Order: sequence, then structure tokens, then C-alpha cells
Amino acid sequence: MTGWLRVNGDRLSADLAALAEISAPGPGVTRRAFSPEDARARAWLSDRMAAAGLTVRRDGAGSLIGRLGGAGPAIVIGSHIDSVPSGGALDGCYGVLAGLECVRRLGELGRTPPTPLEIVAFADEEGRFLDLFGSRAMAGALSAADIAATDLAAADLAAAASDEAGETLAAALAAEGLSAETALAARRADAEIRSYVELHIEQGPALDADGVDIGLATGVAGIARCAYRFEGQANHAGATPMAFRRDALRGAAAFMTQAYELLARAYPETRMTFGALTLEPNVLNVVPGAATLGQEIRDASSERADAARRAFSELAARVAADHGLSATASALNDDPSAPLDAGLRATFSEVCAAGPLRWRTGPSWASHDCQAMAPRWPAALIFVPSRGGVSHHPDEYSTPAQLAAGADLLLNWLCSRHAAGDPPRAV
Amino acid sequence: MTGWLRVNGDRLSADLAALAEISAPGPGVTRRAFSPEDARARAWLSDRMAAAGLTVRRDGAGSLIGRLGGAGPAIVIGSHIDSVPSGGALDGCYGVLAGLECVRRLGELGRTPPTPLEIVAFADEEGRFLDLFGSRAMAGALSAADIAATDLAAADLAAAASDEAGETLAAALAAEGLSAETALAARRADAEIRSYVELHIEQGPALDADGVDIGLATGVAGIARCAYRFEGQANHAGATPMAFRRDALRGAAAFMTQAYELLARAYPETRMTFGALTLEPNVLNVVPGAATLGQEIRDASSERADAARRAFSELAARVAADHGLSATASALNDDPSAPLDAGLRATFSEVCAAGPLRWRTGPSWASHDCQAMAPRWPAALIFVPSRGGVSHHPDEYSTPAQLAAGADLLLNWLCSRHAAGDPPRAV
Repeated sequence: MTGWLRVNGDRLSADLAALAEISAPGPGVTRRAFSPEDARARAWLSDRMAAAGLTVRRDGAGSLIGRLGGAGPAIVIGSHIDSVPSGGALDGCYGVLAGLECVRRLGELGRTPPTPLEIVAFADEEGRFLDLFGSRAMAGALSAADIAATDLAAADLAAAASDEAGETLAAALAAEGLSAETALAARRADAEIRSYVELHIEQGPALDADGVDIGLATGVAGIARCAYRFEGQANHAGATPMAFRRDALRGAAAFMTQAYELLARAYPETRMTFGALTLEPNVLNVVPGAATLGQEIRDASSERADAARRAFSELAARVAADHGLSATASALNDDPSAPLDAGLRATFSEVCAAGPLRWRTGPSWASHDCQAMAPRWPAALIFVPSRGGVSHHPDEYSTPAQLAAGADLLLNWLCSRHAAGDPPRAV
Repeated sequence: MTGWLRVNGDRLSADLAALAEISAPGPGVTRRAFSPEDARARAWLSDRMAAAGLTVRRDGAGSLIGRLGGAGPAIVIGSHIDSVPSGGALDGCYGVLAGLECVRRLGELGRTPPTPLEIVAFADEEGRFLDLFGSRAMAGALSAADIAATDLAAADLAAAASDEAGETLAAALAAEGLSAETALAARRADAEIRSYVELHIEQGPALDADGVDIGLATGVAGIARCAYRFEGQANHAGATPMAFRRDALRGAAAFMTQAYELLARAYPETRMTFGALTLEPNVLNVVPGAATLGQEIRDASSERADAARRAFSELAARVAADHGLSATASALNDDPSAPLDAGLRATFSEVCAAGPLRWRTGPSWASHDCQAMAPRWPAALIFVPSRGGVSHHPDEYSTPAQLAAGADLLLNWLCSRHAAGDPPRAV
């Protein structure tokens, strides 16, 4: 490597700002997968890709692919441009547009990439219908049954606050001339892809708090989802003495409070969220008869996650008995933890070591398209800092310099001996 | 009193069963105020009243009134026949039909009531639109502003789980040829009413648990309603370390758990319910950014209720601070506690003492039409046992013998020297 190359950070920031303008009304960026906004954003990106000299196509799952170079296995650089409702401008978009910026910068520098390159915006990473949909399709990690089962129990919980209830993945695909069959046909052969590289904002506060430029992820934490249902007896809020009540919300509140204590004491490396709660009924003057509580446990260790889940399930039964309630714990769909390729990660740390960037390694707590790609191809996930760790929110922010630094790393890696140094490998 | 008189308990039970048949589909009895089912039930009751020799009219609030006797101040016997969704067969209906049964039995016994009698079924006691609507109208305790303000903040909480959102009291009245003006004109003059007597199931377990036949209520507990809003920061459920979270649901759960501890320690005579909870957002994979919690405090002592409310509000602020949240406590509409007439109550206990019934006195924890009537006229509230205290639920039940015993008390009181013994009194 002869000197540290730099991308055009202003151009990258301008692209991010332009893409953020394409949003449904309301705070932040709302660009749900397969929505009209998502379609407009893909059209905009397709134009930007073509202008950068890429050959653009859409695969059968709706992912957008821009390719540079001839035949042979490609280095795939990707992420997604769909968003959660009222999300931020960077989640996903940064990885796609940083890859595009590298392609443009390579051209300006007169550098020919060592292998074919593909820039990919995967469909529905955020799971409006099925999380990691586009990357799972490309990796062949979807079945027809997966696509048909998008109305799982988990969707009941997630849809409670959504205005999109009733829409289906099948209908969304059909509206774009796609289908379950075309999505399954988006699967790529082993030899088509050399490696997969994803840049992403950290979506956590650690790099920002510690002043570290780059995080090289060792793997993606798995997600174990569970629905706890506490059942008691709906009853009159005035006439029922406190000692006679079987109050499902009181039990759910005690369970949550004790679960956080258990987490801190026994599972300090695990992350747990109670994000969804429904009451039956949900009115001021009736003691709640039933409460259904949605829980996520995230851990890089599947064994630890399983142990935690058993412990929480036992805790729920104990707390329910203390309150005269019944409790049932139902496992919802799980995402297993996904280790990332150590050899590929080592090449990025070597490039970091040759340049000005401070870096460290650690797990990814958020789900990313790389976790679908990693079981098939060597995959890397590279983080840049997020201010305050705020994400999935309009306040999501990284400085232009932080965003440029991550793209610089990718650019220098592409120009290093590492990018094409290792033959493609089936994992 | 020459011997203990008895109503026809089988006829009373048959009336209750027939009225329970008039319901919207689903479990239990659903007869929301001003619904088609409510209209059919009022038509049925009107026929039964007329068959018993009563002159039937509807007042401007939609309450049904059957009158026996000539001019002069009346003893009013009343309650309501509207229900909560999926409620029971007895709440309200028992008081109306027990009064009707007494009228019929008086005729069979050849007894002329000592004063005019009125049997009243008040409109919308359960507060589909405005709780105690009919009795407040009769007592002149409504203003045009009250009627216009039925879309208060409390309705936001209550309506969350309702399929009736969007309907208004004004529209319901208009559909029956009524209006806010006619409702205000339903106010009765002091001299029209001698006393008000309401029979009701206890809706609590105390009489049933202790084998007591009759409860003579000393007053109705007031209801202080409050909305607590906890605000933190919605954030990514995976990428946000536990220590960095400002989780509104975690704070709300801790608040509820500590509030129950505070209640048991400092306010053992007070009843508290958290019946309604909404999260923003309410999805599995986002740390909740805001939680709004609806609380009711019921207490026969307004001073104690006020003290409890201040203590809970201070607790909410402390718990919020512990969790990095803000908390606001907003008082919603209050129902003040309503003492009942001691002199009138003494006449019922004297009748009990002369007969076979075990009785005791105590507060009413539930709201009843008598609390609107009591500030204007001497009012009595008489409870019979509820099995297990279950109410506002299809399983609501009292035995035919328990129901007959309450009606027997009313019949014997009507035939005693007490019913007409005291002149009407403006309270």
C-alpha cells in the first residue's frame, strides 16, 4: 500500500442526505420495504449506480445489484435501504452508498478493482414482512414455507402498533411482478461470490463513547424471541379487594422487574428487551385479566441465550404463582448467532494497522444482512461510531468524518493485496 | 310489622334471565348504553312495567321511569340496565327488576304503597359515553359542558381497546330524538322525590365470603383517575447496552411494583388499579420510548385518596429519575366520594333486625347511580352477595335466594312505618 487513500466524504454525505429525502411523511426516515418510498429510493439508487458505471439489475427477491467488471467471483459490498418507521438516515444506507463511493473513487484514481465488484441493496432487511429477506434469498436460506409463514405469532405482537396490518409479503411481491418462486430463484451459487463486506453504523454507543473509529465484528448475536402470557381474572377495579385480585398486569410488571434483576446478576453479557405488551381488557376500570409480553434475548453465545431463556421461563412461572396467575412462555422465531470469518477480518485489521484508524473487535448486537451471507461466504462487518448509540430513530447520527473513515477503510482494503488475495471459499 | 313478607323469587329470577337474553353476540351480556340491544331491553322493560300497572315514560336523558300512585313526592327505586362489554346478568338489572317485583307483590298482597313509587332504569350508568349519565341528569348534576366534554383525556385510554371509538354521546342522543338540552331538562325538583333506594349485587367478595345476606352502604368510594406518562428514548433492542437504555416500560414496571408495595404499607384501606397501558412503539425489537399508564385510586375518604395520589406522583418521579426517564402525572376526571343518608340507612337496619336477614354496614367500592342522587335526596344502597366477587364478567352470579332476600328487605321496608315516615328532605 502506497499511502492512505481517501474517498470523497462530501459526496458520500450528499448521497446520504439525498436518499434521506425519500421518505413517507412524519419524523425521520420512513421507507418500509416494498412501499412507494422504497420503490422511489431504489429507482434513485439505480440511477446513481448506473452513473457510476455499474450494470444494474434487480434479483427475484427485489434486491438491487450494481456490478462492475467481467465474469468470475465478485466481492459483494452491501447492506439495505429500507427503514423502520421513523428511523434514521444511516442505518443500511451507509453501507450501500459507501460501497458506491468506493467504486466512483476507484475510477477517479484510475484503479481497476482486483475482482468483479457488486454493490447490493438487499430487500426488507428490517423485516416489514420477513427480516433479512433479500440477503436470505441470495444466500439460499429461505424456503417457500418461510415466505408463507410471515404471519407467525410474532407478527401478532409486532403488528399491534402498526398501520400496516393486513398487508402480506405475497401481495407486496406481486405488486412488483415478483413472487415466492422468483425470491427462491435469487439464490447465488458458491462460485459467484468471493466475499461479502458490509459497512454499517454501530447502532450502539460503545465506539462513540470510547473514541474508536472502526469496529470489526467477530459475529452477530443471535436473537431468541419469546411471548409470555399471564392469565388471571378480569374484575371490577373498585369492588375487588386487593387481596382477592388476580391481576395479570401486576404479575407482568413484577416479572419484568425481577427479570431485569436476574439479568444483571446472572447474565451480564446478555441483552434483554420487553418491547411489546398487550392487555385484555385495556381499560381504566377493570383489573387486567390477561397480559401478553414480548421478549427478545440477544447473545453472541447460543448456549448462554438458551440458559437465560430457561431461567426467565422458570421465573415467569414462579412470579405467576405468587400472583395467582398462570403463565405460558412460547418461543417465537429465533435468529441463531452467526460467527464472521476470522481470516477476512484479519485482512481488515491489517489494513487498519497500516493507516490512521483506531479499531477494535467485538460482537454485533444488531442483526445485519451479513448474518445471512456469512454461512455461505467469507463475510466481514465493519462498524463506524453512532452518536450516543441512537438508532432506529430520527436522531441517528454519525459525523461526516466518521462515515468517510469507514469508507476509506473499504477503499484501502479494495486496493490492498488482501481483496483478491484469497480464493473464494465455501464456508 | 306483622310477619316477614316475601317476594316471588322465581318470578324475579325469570325476569333477570329474560333480560339477559337481550345482548349483543359474544360471551356474557353486552348491552352498551344507547345500543340497539339497550333499546330492545328498554322496550321489554317498558312492557313489563306497564303490565305491573306502572305508568311508563322516558325522560330527556333516556332513563326509563315507571310510576305508581298519584301526585306528591315519590320513593324512587332504581338502578340501570346497560352493561359493560361481556358483562354479567345482574349488575344494575337486579335493582330495577327487584323494584318491579316489589310493585307486583304489593299488588298481590293488596297493599297500597304509602307514597307514590317510581321504578327507574337510568341511562348509561356504565359510562359508555358518560358514567352515571341518567342519574346525574335526574339530579341536575350535569352541565352542557360535561356533555360536550365526553371526549376527555380519559376517553383516549379507555377507547384504546374499544371498537366503539368515534361514536359520540351527541350522536347517540340524537338517534333517539334526544339532545343535550333534553338531558339537562331531565332534572327533577327537590319536592318530586322523597328518597332514593338502590339494590345492587355487591360486586365484591366480602358478603359472600362471610355469609352475610345484606350490606347497607355507608357511602360510595370516590374515584381519582390519573395518567402517568414515562418518557425515555426509543432505541435498538440489540445494539443498545443495558446500561445505556432509557426504557419507558422498564420504568413503568418498576413504578407499578413499587406502587403496590407503597399501597400495602401506607394505604391498606385504599384500592388501586393499573388497568390501561400503551407503549410507543409497541414492537418486539425496539426499546419502548414512552409508556402511558392509567391508574384508578378508590377510597371512601377523599383526604386519604388525595394523600395517596400525591405519594404515587412523587414515587413516579423518583422511579423515573432512577431509570433516566421523565414522568408526568395528569389527573383525569374524578368522582368524589359520596356519603349516604344515615337516617334512611337506620330504617333499613331496623327492618333487617325485625326479620331473618344478617346484615352489616360498610363502604361501596363500586360507583352506582345512588352517588349522583345522594347529594340531592336521602339515598340508600343495599347490597346482596356476589359469588367470589366476580363482576363485569360473564361469571357474575348470586343465588336466587340471595337475590330474593334483598328484594324481600325492600318489600318489608315499603310496608313498614319507615317508608313514608320521614318527610322529604333536601340534603
